[in-house]
Amino acid sequence: MACLPQPRGLLPLWTWLLLAGGAAEAGKLLVLPMDGSHWLSMGMVVEKLHRSGHEVTMVIPEVSWRLGSSVPYPVRTYKPSYTLEDYNRVFRRFADNQWDDIPKDLSSALSNPNTTVLFEYLFSNCRSLFQNAELLRFIRESAFDAIFFDPFDQCGFVVAKYFSLPSVAFTRGLFCHFLEEAAQCPSPPSYVPRGMSGLSESMTFAERLQNYVHYLQEVSLCSLFLQTPVNIAGDILQRPLTVKELYRDTDIWLLRTDFVFDYPKPLMPNMVFVGGITCHESKPLSEEFEGYVNASGEHGIVVFSLGSMVSEIPMAKAMEIADALGTIPQTVLWRYTGKPPSNLAKNTKLVKWLPQNDLLGHPKTRAFITHAGSHGIYEGLCNGVPMVLMPLFGDQMDNAKRMESRGAGVTLNVLEMTSADLSKALKTVINDKSYKENIMRLSALHKDRPISPLDLAVFWVEFVMRNKGAPHLRPAAHDLNWFQYHSLDVIAFLLAIVLTVVFIAVKSYMFCCQKCFGKKGKAKKAPKSKSH
Amino acid sequence: MACLPQPRGLLPLWTWLLLAGGAAEAGKLLVLPMDGSHWLSMGMVVEKLHRSGHEVTMVIPEVSWRLGSSVPYPVRTYKPSYTLEDYNRVFRRFADNQWDDIPKDLSSALSNPNTTVLFEYLFSNCRSLFQNAELLRFIRESAFDAIFFDPFDQCGFVVAKYFSLPSVAFTRGLFCHFLEEAAQCPSPPSYVPRGMSGLSESMTFAERLQNYVHYLQEVSLCSLFLQTPVNIAGDILQRPLTVKELYRDTDIWLLRTDFVFDYPKPLMPNMVFVGGITCHESKPLSEEFEGYVNASGEHGIVVFSLGSMVSEIPMAKAMEIADALGTIPQTVLWRYTGKPPSNLAKNTKLVKWLPQNDLLGHPKTRAFITHAGSHGIYEGLCNGVPMVLMPLFGDQMDNAKRMESRGAGVTLNVLEMTSADLSKALKTVINDKSYKENIMRLSALHKDRPISPLDLAVFWVEFVMRNKGAPHLRPAAHDLNWFQYHSLDVIAFLLAIVLTVVFIAVKSYMFCCQKCFGKKGKAKKAPKSKSH
Repeated sequence: MACLPQPRGLLPLWTWLLLAGGAAEAGKLLVLPMDGSHWLSMGMVVEKLHRSGHEVTMVIPEVSWRLGSSVPYPVRTYKPSYTLEDYNRVFRRFADNQWDDIPKDLSSALSNPNTTVLFEYLFSNCRSLFQNAELLRFIRESAFDAIFFDPFDQCGFVVAKYFSLPSVAFTRGLFCHFLEEAAQCPSPPSYVPRGMSGLSESMTFAERLQNYVHYLQEVSLCSLFLQTPVNIAGDILQRPLTVKELYRDTDIWLLRTDFVFDYPKPLMPNMVFVGGITCHESKPLSEEFEGYVNASGEHGIVVFSLGSMVSEIPMAKAMEIADALGTIPQTVLWRYTGKPPSNLAKNTKLVKWLPQNDLLGHPKTRAFITHAGSHGIYEGLCNGVPMVLMPLFGDQMDNAKRMESRGAGVTLNVLEMTSADLSKALKTVINDKSYKENIMRLSALHKDRPISPLDLAVFWVEFVMRNKGAPHLRPAAHDLNWFQYHSLDVIAFLLAIVLTVVFIAVKSYMFCCQKCFGKKGKAKKAPKSKSH
Repeated sequence: MACLPQPRGLLPLWTWLLLAGGAAEAGKLLVLPMDGSHWLSMGMVVEKLHRSGHEVTMVIPEVSWRLGSSVPYPVRTYKPSYTLEDYNRVFRRFADNQWDDIPKDLSSALSNPNTTVLFEYLFSNCRSLFQNAELLRFIRESAFDAIFFDPFDQCGFVVAKYFSLPSVAFTRGLFCHFLEEAAQCPSPPSYVPRGMSGLSESMTFAERLQNYVHYLQEVSLCSLFLQTPVNIAGDILQRPLTVKELYRDTDIWLLRTDFVFDYPKPLMPNMVFVGGITCHESKPLSEEFEGYVNASGEHGIVVFSLGSMVSEIPMAKAMEIADALGTIPQTVLWRYTGKPPSNLAKNTKLVKWLPQNDLLGHPKTRAFITHAGSHGIYEGLCNGVPMVLMPLFGDQMDNAKRMESRGAGVTLNVLEMTSADLSKALKTVINDKSYKENIMRLSALHKDRPISPLDLAVFWVEFVMRNKGAPHLRPAAHDLNWFQYHSLDVIAFLLAIVLTVVFIAVKSYMFCCQKCFGKKGKAKKAPKSKSH
């Protein structure tokens, strides 16, 4: 295919925007974000909405890590039931626990006390928010056009319902099977791997069995896990309700994934895929990092980060890792805030923070060691860097599986791996050219889209503000119970008709036979008796 | 919401396109279109692809109505098995038949000889194409990047398979359940009305029953209807194959609908919705039509067309219609080529052709009488004109139902309606303001999208050319048989385990009981005998 000089389709897009909406309209948006890495991409959407002239107000708890600091739009806070020290302690215990044990199944993951206590903290925020009368009055009087929220702590659903606000949820997914239930989206467990199962789309019979059992566990256990937020919602809304009832009025689901990263599966019209928002052109490196990269010579560098939530790891594991890193000729830049391992090799530089996307975008970067958080994965994917994946919790096992099954990375069990395993994995993704080729192909596919994920996310938030929701995208399935949805009443009715017809036919046939053969029998017998 | 002066998101889109693909690439595209109204929107996509610098070649039969005339790109023809006279005669018989009888169900629609003979003509094109050795050599030597086809005559699938070409299908839908089967898209018959059922998304039990029976008819009858093209495909590809096998390798399905017009339902990632391509800003009217509109005074005009395929109607029906049109104060512009009805009122102007979109876009247009073809519906919808819908065949019943159920039009049974019915329907959509409000709301929603349907269609054809298909959007469901897809083997296995466990438990319990009570019995009996 020969190159033509002009980029395509710009003028018509412009024309269409003008034709469709005329000048942009400024709306009033209530934002309920989630702390931690979740805010990385949602923050970019909110910032762009603010820059577009919308009146954005963010509501957050007083206690948080990265929310509300230095944002250019108003922030309202409420007092949570815990202090920052409590929050840090509970999170530390949760994070440290990941180094002891990777849960074997959904049941053990959901019932781990270190997990449940963290979630009880998060879930309690909603009660705290609704105890702040002044904040409630402010929200009511502000007459927001819509609410834009991260559903992880569940409170966005409650606020949307309480104030009857059109709503846009921004998330990687929901717990268990609830996104499918809330959006009425079919998801056959025969080829759609369940969340946190760590399975791929191509499953053996045993894996399909495992996936199905995982699904059965979701259906039977997950409502229990979400009992607290559902009870809180019930208290606030003053009526009992189920998880599905709490979730199902969401107008648009902005999902932080796409089908270059995720496996193809059924969708619904109000699901919009915006994976890759944090990928942007890499900026020039600071002097410090430029120095590291330049000094790496022909071998280049490896970027190593376990994400913003995990910066320390047990010393024995750290030494094992350090040992492995010393076996490759690349310079390794390792984001690590703990005590340096004593066996750190010369090629390994520990840094407290690193410009991840800018480093991944550097042509000398050969590999990325990551915990497989979705933001990190997308930065690796966008920049075309093969990965060594060391998933720890949440969706990370699934994310790792997706990269591995596409030949773009090697997954390691971080608890069981040896130094040799890590060394081998690194050498594989760096030296086996297929990994680089595959991640470059995925990178090109991911970027080949008609509109950037950030613009798409902004468009749909604005759409919901402009149109007071998106009820035209709500499927009629919401009006059916599960019996009707699966047409079981119709099938039962048809079966009843068929059985009745068969019954009548058989009875009629038997009756006829009886009559005919009875008569024949008699008729035959009669002549016989006569002949005698 | 106050107005801001700047249109949104232009610079980032530009940046994204530059970042993503760099300069646009010119590809080689093979186009297999369908004659008649189908070409209206597909032609616009092909024209834009040609203007974007792609090397487009269209392959069509020598005999056609509107294909190939005055297009600015090369056209290659093959000799079909029929003459233009045959084609016109068969189509006229098919069209005339619509005035005699509206089929009661799918079975009678598919078995009508006037329908089947028309389709046998269309299906035979593929055999004719493959009998043209020179054309086949040309296609092979051209090394096209992709094929872009209308699947109505089925031949695009065969050409794509024969030459192993990545493919984009452009259609309103496929016959029966085959789109869902080909794309592995779930479609619960409890709320997704089957094609040609004329049902809405909100169904009573009786309607759900009807929809389910319609679905059963599709599954049992439709393969027979498509036996000819499947046999032709089998002969050409030299292996027996099913309809699903013929369809399922299509990379992208460009579907001429959206969820303002259609009801929300499950989708798959390789389905792209591009309804409304023919809607564009209306151009100024010619002197003739400007004269009619100006002379209509305060009452304005009504636009009446039964589409490009039906221009004549039986005289008795035409007189009934003419009678009704005389009862409204609006001027009616009626596209009609038959003998003028003798009772034509003064307010009714017969024209052989009318600039439909431009008239519908005129502010004095009060209503649109249409056969509910999808192109016409979208032009009415874009321009916000309430409709009186007189569906005749194919998807028209469904299209009419969608507009009616949204309060944007009134549907009439064209065979059974009286003059009074049409008069009443016209007065209703013109005078009841809710119809205008509803169609204006739908119009605004339809236009409120991040990218125009034409640009979106062009993007995906280019995507498939650039990337040699879209295998990353192909769900793993294609690798499962129906038993596995529905997890029936897994469920059977789990049931077997449960039953075995229950069986062993019951047997063990009974064995224990027998042992215990047996012993106890004996033990009890022993002391008793001793005591005696």
